Amino acid sequence: MTHVEIIGYIAATLTTASFVPQAVLTIKTRNTESLSFGMYSAFTLGVSCWLIYGIYLADKAIIFANAITLLLAASILFVKIRNMVGKKKA
Amino acid sequence: MTHVEIIGYIAATLTTASFVPQAVLTIKTRNTESLSFGMYSAFTLGVSCWLIYGIYLADKAIIFANAITLLLAASILFVKIRNMVGKKKA
Repeated sequence: MTHVEIIGYIAATLTTASFVPQAVLTIKTRNTESLSFGMYSAFTLGVSCWLIYGIYLADKAIIFANAITLLLAASILFVKIRNMVGKKKA
Repeated sequence: MTHVEIIGYIAATLTTASFVPQAVLTIKTRNTESLSFGMYSAFTLGVSCWLIYGIYLADKAIIFANAITLLLAASILFVKIRNMVGKKKA
């Protein structure tokens, strides 16, 4: 594996894994006051497109990273929408 | 441009642009209570790695998308850290 490939893998791991602490915090506290609905709706849709892109290319790394990110981002978006509907900590 | 490439461009645009409403909300309200420090520190570091990766590959799309995302994510992280230090809406 080249140095460039290693940087790519570190980048992918960090940007995917970064959503774990946010999802844990959001699910635990149910507080989504300072989370942007616009961000999470656009991001969830974007990650879904990345997943479709990965499936078309049959690229396991793209599929794997985006399947995890989609699960995390969609969970955060779900709590945000529930709070917006319930008008609680929206 | 193929259908697959179009899906890739839509994906990249959405995941990059999604940080605009979050950065606007965070800078405007200064409220970072429900934002995870772990997420924004790991994400900012990860996007920096993507930028280095793009520079190594001389891939303009990777450089462009990640330079914008880095600016937005770093701005959000900056407000979060300032609030944590000031213990205000941390």
